[in-house]
Amino acid sequence: LWRSSQAAVRAMSSSGGPSPPYTTLAVSHPAEFVTHVEFHRPEKRNAMNRTFWREMVELFNELAVNPDCRAVVFSGAGEVFTAGIDLMDMANDVLQPGGKDTARKCWQLRKKIVAYQETFSVLERCPKPVVVAVHGACIGGGVDMITACDVRLCTQDAWFQVKEVDIGLAADVGTLQRLPRVIGSRSLVNELALTARKMYADEAKSSGLVSRVFPDKEVMMAGAIAMAEEMAARSPVAVQGTKINLLYSRDHSVAESLDYMATWNMSMLQTDDLMKSAQAAMEKKSPKMVVFSKL
Amino acid sequence: LWRSSQAAVRAMSSSGGPSPPYTTLAVSHPAEFVTHVEFHRPEKRNAMNRTFWREMVELFNELAVNPDCRAVVFSGAGEVFTAGIDLMDMANDVLQPGGKDTARKCWQLRKKIVAYQETFSVLERCPKPVVVAVHGACIGGGVDMITACDVRLCTQDAWFQVKEVDIGLAADVGTLQRLPRVIGSRSLVNELALTARKMYADEAKSSGLVSRVFPDKEVMMAGAIAMAEEMAARSPVAVQGTKINLLYSRDHSVAESLDYMATWNMSMLQTDDLMKSAQAAMEKKSPKMVVFSKL
Amino acid sequence: LWRSSQAAVRAMSSSGGPSPPYTTLAVSHPAEFVTHVEFHRPEKRNAMNRTFWREMVELFNELAVNPDCRAVVFSGAGEVFTAGIDLMDMANDVLQPGGKDTARKCWQLRKKIVAYQETFSVLERCPKPVVVAVHGACIGGGVDMITACDVRLCTQDAWFQVKEVDIGLAADVGTLQRLPRVIGSRSLVNELALTARKMYADEAKSSGLVSRVFPDKEVMMAGAIAMAEEMAARSPVAVQGTKINLLYSRDHSVAESLDYMATWNMSMLQTDDLMKSAQAAMEKKSPKMVVFSKL
Amino acid sequence: LWRSSQAAVRAMSSSGGPSPPYTTLAVSHPAEFVTHVEFHRPEKRNAMNRTFWREMVELFNELAVNPDCRAVVFSGAGEVFTAGIDLMDMANDVLQPGGKDTARKCWQLRKKIVAYQETFSVLERCPKPVVVAVHGACIGGGVDMITACDVRLCTQDAWFQVKEVDIGLAADVGTLQRLPRVIGSRSLVNELALTARKMYADEAKSSGLVSRVFPDKEVMMAGAIAMAEEMAARSPVAVQGTKINLLYSRDHSVAESLDYMATWNMSMLQTDDLMKSAQAAMEKKSPKMVVFSKL
Amino acid sequence: LWRSSQAAVRAMSSSGGPSPPYTTLAVSHPAEFVTHVEFHRPEKRNAMNRTFWREMVELFNELAVNPDCRAVVFSGAGEVFTAGIDLMDMANDVLQPGGKDTARKCWQLRKKIVAYQETFSVLERCPKPVVVAVHGACIGGGVDMITACDVRLCTQDAWFQVKEVDIGLAADVGTLQRLPRVIGSRSLVNELALTARKMYADEAKSSGLVSRVFPDKEVMMAGAIAMAEEMAARSPVAVQGTKINLLYSRDHSVAESLDYMATWNMSMLQTDDLMKSAQAAMEKKSPKMVVFSKL
Amino acid sequence: LWRSSQAAVRAMSSSGGPSPPYTTLAVSHPAEFVTHVEFHRPEKRNAMNRTFWREMVELFNELAVNPDCRAVVFSGAGEVFTAGIDLMDMANDVLQPGGKDTARKCWQLRKKIVAYQETFSVLERCPKPVVVAVHGACIGGGVDMITACDVRLCTQDAWFQVKEVDIGLAADVGTLQRLPRVIGSRSLVNELALTARKMYADEAKSSGLVSRVFPDKEVMMAGAIAMAEEMAARSPVAVQGTKINLLYSRDHSVAESLDYMATWNMSMLQTDDLMKSAQAAMEKKSPKMVVFSKL
Repeated sequence: LWRSSQAAVRAMSSSGGPSPPYTTLAVSHPAEFVTHVEFHRPEKRNAMNRTFWREMVELFNELAVNPDCRAVVFSGAGEVFTAGIDLMDMANDVLQPGGKDTARKCWQLRKKIVAYQETFSVLERCPKPVVVAVHGACIGGGVDMITACDVRLCTQDAWFQVKEVDIGLAADVGTLQRLPRVIGSRSLVNELALTARKMYADEAKSSGLVSRVFPDKEVMMAGAIAMAEEMAARSPVAVQGTKINLLYSRDHSVAESLDYMATWNMSMLQTDDLMKSAQAAMEKKSPKMVVFSKL
Repeated sequence: LWRSSQAAVRAMSSSGGPSPPYTTLAVSHPAEFVTHVEFHRPEKRNAMNRTFWREMVELFNELAVNPDCRAVVFSGAGEVFTAGIDLMDMANDVLQPGGKDTARKCWQLRKKIVAYQETFSVLERCPKPVVVAVHGACIGGGVDMITACDVRLCTQDAWFQVKEVDIGLAADVGTLQRLPRVIGSRSLVNELALTARKMYADEAKSSGLVSRVFPDKEVMMAGAIAMAEEMAARSPVAVQGTKINLLYSRDHSVAESLDYMATWNMSMLQTDDLMKSAQAAMEKKSPKMVVFSKL
Repeated sequence: LWRSSQAAVRAMSSSGGPSPPYTTLAVSHPAEFVTHVEFHRPEKRNAMNRTFWREMVELFNELAVNPDCRAVVFSGAGEVFTAGIDLMDMANDVLQPGGKDTARKCWQLRKKIVAYQETFSVLERCPKPVVVAVHGACIGGGVDMITACDVRLCTQDAWFQVKEVDIGLAADVGTLQRLPRVIGSRSLVNELALTARKMYADEAKSSGLVSRVFPDKEVMMAGAIAMAEEMAARSPVAVQGTKINLLYSRDHSVAESLDYMATWNMSMLQTDDLMKSAQAAMEKKSPKMVVFSKL
Repeated sequence: LWRSSQAAVRAMSSSGGPSPPYTTLAVSHPAEFVTHVEFHRPEKRNAMNRTFWREMVELFNELAVNPDCRAVVFSGAGEVFTAGIDLMDMANDVLQPGGKDTARKCWQLRKKIVAYQETFSVLERCPKPVVVAVHGACIGGGVDMITACDVRLCTQDAWFQVKEVDIGLAADVGTLQRLPRVIGSRSLVNELALTARKMYADEAKSSGLVSRVFPDKEVMMAGAIAMAEEMAARSPVAVQGTKINLLYSRDHSVAESLDYMATWNMSMLQTDDLMKSAQAAMEKKSPKMVVFSKL
Repeated sequence: LWRSSQAAVRAMSSSGGPSPPYTTLAVSHPAEFVTHVEFHRPEKRNAMNRTFWREMVELFNELAVNPDCRAVVFSGAGEVFTAGIDLMDMANDVLQPGGKDTARKCWQLRKKIVAYQETFSVLERCPKPVVVAVHGACIGGGVDMITACDVRLCTQDAWFQVKEVDIGLAADVGTLQRLPRVIGSRSLVNELALTARKMYADEAKSSGLVSRVFPDKEVMMAGAIAMAEEMAARSPVAVQGTKINLLYSRDHSVAESLDYMATWNMSMLQTDDLMKSAQAAMEKKSPKMVVFSKL
Repeated sequence: LWRSSQAAVRAMSSSGGPSPPYTTLAVSHPAEFVTHVEFHRPEKRNAMNRTFWREMVELFNELAVNPDCRAVVFSGAGEVFTAGIDLMDMANDVLQPGGKDTARKCWQLRKKIVAYQETFSVLERCPKPVVVAVHGACIGGGVDMITACDVRLCTQDAWFQVKEVDIGLAADVGTLQRLPRVIGSRSLVNELALTARKMYADEAKSSGLVSRVFPDKEVMMAGAIAMAEEMAARSPVAVQGTKINLLYSRDHSVAESLDYMATWNMSMLQTDDLMKSAQAAMEKKSPKMVVFSKL
């Protein structure tokens, strides 16, 4: 397993840049049914510009329905994962809304905030699991983004910063909504969000923000892809149904979530994948040896 | 305290099998007001068959109203806690719903899923605290089950596996709904549910799935029973009201939960137990020396 | 930074007692825009009497609208943080509601419970962050209280006890509602609430109840005040909007919380603080060098 | 159509009393797939005694899974629909809970209230539509009951009374929860519940409590059975799915309800009933001429 | 009954103005346990000024705990019920918030809106039923207000106008939140709120906004007081519990509301009022002949 | 007013068909800021085909952001409003999902149902009010559609039919979710949905489904446009904020909705429209004489 993953990683290293038509994202396929998306503005420390926000929506809406994609790995090119919002590029958008009437400026700003929120919500609405691999800095919008991914991994040198209060605003594209749900210490969440202090890999691990820490980026990428392969090897009906129901239960009571789950599985249990998988399990075969129809 | 518990454990060891009328569950009373329920299909690695699902509902509905039961310890007989669903026994039920019409097959399946969910929901609806003690493997349905218990303990050799995606389905009897609420790292929850990898005792402890790890099963059982004795020794009005309100607050906002709590306690504070307990506390007596009326 | 904080701590040490008109609370200003509130009934081990409950509401309602307060540190004077409810003082209130009719006694009790809940809910409704610093014992009502604060710190010798079941009642002023939301292990929450066992600083840290442990009280107080200074130095529009939205998202779904956030920030992004902060950030200035208008 | 219904009504008239094993309920089958349930304690003006509460649960749980029942008509035998709770029979239950401890009396009372609520909630959980036909008086518990039915009809001489405040309690088995959801004027709901005044057929119709008023009981019963036949003649997959989703949407937001609906119909649309029904519709055939498999 | 009410009305007519310390509200006691609150700024067509907003909160907070008040009638003095907000008086408050920073102006405005909302929310939080009697015009803030009352009555010459869009704002003190819940036609609600057209008494009755229309103000006042007497004559435990639970069920699902109701009544059913009322009912006595303890 | 509207109606009558690029929708502008959308497949009795579903989304997403549109009138061309779903056109889509695996067919169907639901949800998400004018038949999908509009009008000869159970399915694009929220009688909703009986104009009016009935289509169109003009003449900040908050309050509790409203209006009250409108109101000018900036 790991050998092929490492080969894949080496293959990826030769990638020269963004994949057309994208200009901020490089897309590759390091393993069967696995899509690797790389944020690729290394010269700008992967700062999030307007192009990035738009391309994320386009790409993930496409991946959501692409049957050849069953799991996604997301990472950043260059020195750091991301420096966060590209203030220069976005200044006009956010800092100088048009017109003189306060209400009308609000109206325009609200539309933009909702659109930026959407950029990361597509990560959730995409039913394929998204594993995010963080190295170096993950600042501001970067934290908003990774909390919308399903599994978070990082390198030993990674650090995280909820930067927004430092530039005079309450984080509004996801961190305040999702961070408290992905880690177990509210005291820590509040401390991070109210003081903008940095958190390093060890605390990220012990607090549960990431579930694994790797010594360096190369090892992490191999691990991330191997994990995505595990997900991609299992029945897509099972895996994607699992993601959808995990997210449902986050936002509903246990009773409501059990009801939804039963209504979901009353049909999904009739899939052929169940028999194929059960048989493979009894025969002690790896799920990777089973061929599932496209979904 | 521990001595008597260990005696109790030894006493239990001599139990020869299920307690009639049950055929999969052995019921004993290792200490006053403490009920020990043992899953007893050791020859089948405590695989969950249809009889088990039915007996669980019957037993816990009975314990819910039995005034001599104030706390429950649940454990598994034999080598492992549970191997999960007994696929052989349940195949007809789930894999081959009757009839040809898709809608009607769904209708039947939904009823069965709801019934299976009920098996573990009775653990929550029973107002007496349930301490679950896990040794060896806890697979698939086992994880669904323990997340519906109140306190989770395990031995050093225990391991946990959200197995469902391996057999082609999204877990539908509680894991996806309750696991994210009982541990603090959503990244870990997702990783476990989407890859079916095993988690061992150390990670179970550091992630908060279990609150204590014991060196072996005998010590764990003594610890579990001692803990249940502590719960059983306190006012049942206080203990059971605590469980009911903890579960209520899980599924409601803080404001709603405070309102419910006030409405609950406006009468429960009038219990004689309050005066008895307060007096014992002032006199530095153990709660075990107070006699509370049956509830 | 730390030097000035330590000076502030020394200054505080000379405080002789409660600040009129309060008789249980000492209020001081160890740093600009930082308010230090000290629970000051050391001779009673800071037991919560009826005066305390009333004064907390008065004080925090005042701090909520006081523009000179941008962050609060709360701590206890004397040997311990708090011994919890002052049973002697409150006995008449709670143990002997007037009248003979059960319904009417309930009616009176409910009003009192709601009023006591309010004492800690004011901590949440105050939009300024509250950092609580715990040393020694934090018992019963103390746990209810600290779970309503934003950041929790403690000394190495601190311990926490959900004491209520020991005196015959289900905790009704916040612990059962907030504790499961501030730490990541539900098994631990249940164990603490159902057995009333003590939890020490290490477990408080590993479970996420506190986000930092300090060697002793003096160091902790310096750390707490330094942290509050960090919060107070940033834009109050950003910091207080962050607190308000963190609490909102605790009690609503992610989708609802994002919607609220966008509606909030459509106007708050128009603050001058944003430009001031962004400029300072680009110039690598500390937020402390920026002057924000009062809020 | 009406002719056969009237014949059925006549046939029913000859029924001599309750259907064993029931002693308060007479069950008959006036038309194919239609079950008629008659409350049969005419000598007690159909007062609701403990036997009735229990039998309702037994019967409707049975009807819920009986494939030969696709629609239910509920009515009362004798002079009036129901005089409400049988105070004499229930006095011991409710007025004199056992024991001396307030908390323990509450505990017992709560169990009983929940059980009584269940009596009417079974009407909702039964996925087959329930048409209730009211003549004469419908008092107290009668209003609780009819608000849990799906369609309400009455005779010109019917009257309704939310009686509970007259006997010193807030209605606790459904009226306060369901009445505001079944009629359109909250001012009227409040007036009825807070003054216990009678409401007659005309106001019941104009307020929307009933959807049709009939001149006398015989005509009403024919109309009720004809309506039930219409429901029973259509695809049970469609009709029961409609009831389930109407109830779901009552208690959830529109967005949540649409999501649930889509998840429900993704399988139910695959039923053969759809093709059969569509074909009949195109051929202008009555649904009654289509044969649907049992559900 | 009516005779005494009419005498009471005549008595009230002699009232010369507001009751000190109030300057916009006249308070009287036309019948036992009934409080009549009259909006008394006839020379300003009962326009809502800042004094009124404040006095409403003070008065209804007092009535909420006054045991001599068991039901309230609210009406307006002079020609009309109310002309709505007093724009002149409130212009400074709302139209010219202080300061230059948009965020800070928002912050101040939000506090004021919340305070104004509170003015009408006290009507709901007061557990005693509030019957509102409308004559002549009820404009803008008047509609916000009456939708927070429990029962709405009007004269034949009354008319209602959701005026806010006419002056350039979305109604923000209750109409948009409560009007759709008190009448049964959403098309009508939207039409009224989006066009600001007037609605007259007949449509108010047929749509369910009011539950009764009276020929003139004198008759209406007699009717309103008679209705309040009916409420005041019944067990306050029953009546106030009914109001509290009706409001609870408005904002929660049926299942949640039934649960709350059971938890409420487990103690309230133990009131002596139940036995007293039941006995009176059996003896065919009027509730007015029963003496209930104060609540 | 009416004269110009009638002229506009006459002008529209000359419209020859759909407005490119649309092939099922004719778009015109009968009055300033008013858009008239006509469903234009008269030769197919305005049956909803796949093109219609797509064009609705495109058009209303455009209208949502078009500043020249402040209110919308929707009607149907030809003999009837709509015959509902075009079964022939959609048969492939819905009746024969591809593939053999049940789970995969469900997956595809769910996507389609969600897309169809979206067609009508755009009517709600468009912040401009939508007045729908119904003549003749409004069947099946037509009812789903009109319940997503804001104001419903009809002619005397209109009739409505929740047709879905007749063709073997539970209505899944909005009727079961929205109809109970727009009319006041749940008994009627259930009767209509479970029996598919027709409802005529009078019952539509008395039940609150429509807020006005007109003698014929020409008069209705004039009335609809006049009503839309009233809406379009008022401040768009006020009108659109009203629609957004009315929809918000439908799906949230009163307390949550008031909070959202305050957060919304803290900025929207700063609009210049408020001063302009207030001044016009004081000068007794019509809102139509005020010029508001585009939104």
